[in-house]
Amino acid sequence: MHHGIGFIQDLAVVMAFAGVVTVLFHRLKQPVVLGYIAAGVIIGPYTPPFQLIHDEATIQTLGELGVVFLMFSLGLEFSLRKLFRVGATAIVAALSEIVLMLWIGYEIGSAFGWSSMDSLFLGAILAISSTTIIVKALSELGLKRENFAQLVFGILIVEDILAIAMLVLLSGIAQTGQLSAGIALITLGKLLLFMTVSLVVGILVVPRALNYVARSRSDEMLLVSVLGFCFGFCLLVVKLDYSIALGAFLIGAIMAESRHLHRIEHLIAPLRDAFSAIFFVTIGLMLDPRILVDYAWPIAVITVAVIVGKIVSCGLGTFLAGKDGRTAMRVGMTVSQIGEFSFIIASLGLTLKVTSAFLYPIAVAVSALTTLFTPYLIRAADPITQRLGRAMPATLANVFGMYSQWLGSLRPSSDEPTLLSMTRRIVLQIAVNLALVAAIFLGVSYGAPHASDFLAHWVSSEPLQRVVLWSGALLVSLPFLVAVYRKTKSLALLLAEVSVQPAKAGRFTSAIRYAISDLVPIVSMVGVFLLVAALSGGILPPTGLLIAVLLCAALLVALLWRWCVRIHATMQIALRETFEEQPDP
Amino acid sequence: MHHGIGFIQDLAVVMAFAGVVTVLFHRLKQPVVLGYIAAGVIIGPYTPPFQLIHDEATIQTLGELGVVFLMFSLGLEFSLRKLFRVGATAIVAALSEIVLMLWIGYEIGSAFGWSSMDSLFLGAILAISSTTIIVKALSELGLKRENFAQLVFGILIVEDILAIAMLVLLSGIAQTGQLSAGIALITLGKLLLFMTVSLVVGILVVPRALNYVARSRSDEMLLVSVLGFCFGFCLLVVKLDYSIALGAFLIGAIMAESRHLHRIEHLIAPLRDAFSAIFFVTIGLMLDPRILVDYAWPIAVITVAVIVGKIVSCGLGTFLAGKDGRTAMRVGMTVSQIGEFSFIIASLGLTLKVTSAFLYPIAVAVSALTTLFTPYLIRAADPITQRLGRAMPATLANVFGMYSQWLGSLRPSSDEPTLLSMTRRIVLQIAVNLALVAAIFLGVSYGAPHASDFLAHWVSSEPLQRVVLWSGALLVSLPFLVAVYRKTKSLALLLAEVSVQPAKAGRFTSAIRYAISDLVPIVSMVGVFLLVAALSGGILPPTGLLIAVLLCAALLVALLWRWCVRIHATMQIALRETFEEQPDP
Repeated sequence: MHHGIGFIQDLAVVMAFAGVVTVLFHRLKQPVVLGYIAAGVIIGPYTPPFQLIHDEATIQTLGELGVVFLMFSLGLEFSLRKLFRVGATAIVAALSEIVLMLWIGYEIGSAFGWSSMDSLFLGAILAISSTTIIVKALSELGLKRENFAQLVFGILIVEDILAIAMLVLLSGIAQTGQLSAGIALITLGKLLLFMTVSLVVGILVVPRALNYVARSRSDEMLLVSVLGFCFGFCLLVVKLDYSIALGAFLIGAIMAESRHLHRIEHLIAPLRDAFSAIFFVTIGLMLDPRILVDYAWPIAVITVAVIVGKIVSCGLGTFLAGKDGRTAMRVGMTVSQIGEFSFIIASLGLTLKVTSAFLYPIAVAVSALTTLFTPYLIRAADPITQRLGRAMPATLANVFGMYSQWLGSLRPSSDEPTLLSMTRRIVLQIAVNLALVAAIFLGVSYGAPHASDFLAHWVSSEPLQRVVLWSGALLVSLPFLVAVYRKTKSLALLLAEVSVQPAKAGRFTSAIRYAISDLVPIVSMVGVFLLVAALSGGILPPTGLLIAVLLCAALLVALLWRWCVRIHATMQIALRETFEEQPDP
Repeated sequence: MHHGIGFIQDLAVVMAFAGVVTVLFHRLKQPVVLGYIAAGVIIGPYTPPFQLIHDEATIQTLGELGVVFLMFSLGLEFSLRKLFRVGATAIVAALSEIVLMLWIGYEIGSAFGWSSMDSLFLGAILAISSTTIIVKALSELGLKRENFAQLVFGILIVEDILAIAMLVLLSGIAQTGQLSAGIALITLGKLLLFMTVSLVVGILVVPRALNYVARSRSDEMLLVSVLGFCFGFCLLVVKLDYSIALGAFLIGAIMAESRHLHRIEHLIAPLRDAFSAIFFVTIGLMLDPRILVDYAWPIAVITVAVIVGKIVSCGLGTFLAGKDGRTAMRVGMTVSQIGEFSFIIASLGLTLKVTSAFLYPIAVAVSALTTLFTPYLIRAADPITQRLGRAMPATLANVFGMYSQWLGSLRPSSDEPTLLSMTRRIVLQIAVNLALVAAIFLGVSYGAPHASDFLAHWVSSEPLQRVVLWSGALLVSLPFLVAVYRKTKSLALLLAEVSVQPAKAGRFTSAIRYAISDLVPIVSMVGVFLLVAALSGGILPPTGLLIAVLLCAALLVALLWRWCVRIHATMQIALRETFEEQPDP
């Protein structure tokens, strides 16, 4: 019992300071997060009285747990349903914000004469707004249920996904020193593949497992199971060289589809609050106030750039996507700060040893300043809109008005499923099934070296081992391949119906239609085969054996066609059920 | 983000295994705690496949957090009110259990030829039952609200306090190698003093502070404040060389008097569940199954001894304290296991390097076995009572019956405040006030070396510094000294009224009564002065100055008498208010 006293002492200091400061900042009506960071600065080694923490590494480790719980909670609040609802506007606004802020950050860094890697990371640090701060500020101001707030949450979700892509890309750039378009595409493709497969498989498995556990009504069991899934999945993600933040976010998003979402949120909240407090304190620990004084000028410039840049970029994006000027201004004013993701990106740079030491404290300082302004900016949105409206030259106001009218005229007037929406739906289904097939073959290729040691007991010849592995992968992916074929066929039929008009094709209409709807799926399946062959290069059997395997597979498909269709339909229904189930109140 | 992967991996392994095992053991209707320990054994280094944990130290540290949260939760469930209600019976039963089990454990150890320190620790390991297991078992069996369950909880509370005393004494014995009655008395006296002062000061300060924080309705703020108090107090306790378990328990007991008890319990539960899971897994980690095989014989003997010994000792204690045979049997059957405290005591022995390595795994094995039997024993209590009742010889049954009747005749028939209860109340008040006075002088003596550095700026002469410190302590304790004087006087009046009867003292009755009621308080105050002088030996001014200080103090008391009385009354009322306030639902 008497070892680890140093650790308890550290924890006591952190929690005691955090406790005092959270009350103080609440009285001053400032965000508590700022308080935690301030507590960290006071405790930290750079300020008097002295270093109060003995074992900084352990506290940092606990802070990392804070990141896990923070991202997990964000994931729980993420919802594919919500994303679909605000979809297009959120994507346009988030993209316009991220691209512009990346560029502004890079330019500012270059203007100060920093290295291109520092400038790039600065851009990434400025790109993403802080979900935590925004959610807190909006709920403190009582605006959480307003329409613009829903849009802001959509933007934040898109940003979270893009931020994760950015983390992956930045790691790649930092390690290779450059960004080739090919590598970027492959990286993003892999990420997309991984996320799709995780979401599909996860949503099929995890909510069902949790339903089973939750039947016991024991909070302890549910919590331990949730944590087991959470950390287990994080481990898998880390083994695949992605960040733990991605893992926690994804598994949170998967659990968001569980019927017991609210119970889980309730159980996780204290863990998140306790450890995110430690995380924000560790940020303060790393902050050397002298650096802030030395870099006062860049900090001021970057703070102004973040506020103005985000209002303009995100507001403009929202407006261009078809919202009115007032909403656009409110959205822009709300997202005008940086937060937890910026710290994660800044510490990524430090960990990979590609950024200078001053970047982290600058990020923290800018985040603190912009966080400080957030509530005032949100409240100032409406007055500023009115003043701008009055001050705007009539011609400019006219142009804006005409743009809104033109966008409005583009929108489909009825809610019927259009050809476009049907096509989109089928294409999405094909993509998901292809992703699953690709993941199966990639997974088997990845595991081949381990499996062949095991297989060597039964099959000694190396080509035969490959046949076993490849056929196994093919067998598992059969239901999805059959689904791809069937969806492609229905897509081809739909398109043939539309594109081949009797007016033009005359009496060949139905013949051409049939030709298209038969030919397209076959050509596609050849394409799918080539894709699979490319992905599973390591375990692809030699040509002769491959043909034999394919013939067997064809026979099998003929025999098991109905079974494959049924399996796939069952899974699809299960997925849809989980999606459509509303969480218990 | 990429450092600490080893740690996340460890945590993932622990939580994933714990998650699977908790579900499994719940299906098998076995206590989840056993599942955690089993998971630890599987993960641990002694069983195949291999060591799955990389950084055992960090996991152990997290497990220690589990002890903190576990003890804190126990403290929250502890309640002075509840203790007063079942008071006498619980104390008799717990004392009889602890004394008998200490003796049985020591004798078994000696019989196996173990060292006397091993035997002593074995006795201590067997002495305390497991609150966690009992609470879980009773609530799973739906017996939590029964009368005997309330009595069991009372016994557990008394055991918790005695266990903490035992921890302190064992540390002392382990460090000095022996137990002199004087040292034991001083140690226990200090512990009692520390606990009394912590409870009084804590209950005056902490619930009020939490009420203030809770007004914000922010769960995050309340949680962080609670954790701040919890770890801050633990730090103080550890600095005073007590165990962190004691600190967590005491601060929990203090917060149990808060109006927001249920909110706090709700917020702490996930932290406790998550980290106590880790704690129980770390117990499994330390378990080498080979030792269990090597020590199968002692384990079997000790298991039987625990079950039979606890049923007999605790059941007999309950019966002797005046409960019927059925209740006594149910109580005995319920407490017949060992648990978390046994691990804490066993690991204390390991940490202090005074016990052999085999003691810990034996404790774990016996705990696992007795835990396994607990639910069956609780259910078997009633049938066994009936069978025993039928099998008992008539003379023995007569003796038991007469004992019960005799005890019943002793009890006061009315609920009026008796002389005894009034005396008890006044003595308790005097004791608490004396404890506060003693704590003030001890605290100032303890802080004197630091304070004199500080004082040296103003007062250079060493005797004068002592005068300043001692007068300061005296000034702070004035309200309590005045209270002691007034309570002693009323006690003396009460006793004089009873003991000096007019029949004997005749016309001197009132004179003698006045003499007693004046003399006793003055004599007592001289005694108090001597006590204070002994406690504050280090800062006691030289005789001449001391007399001057005392004269000044006498003058001050005369001037401030009413103010002192008012201050003390305010505090007493505040304390009583906090006690009598029911927690919000």
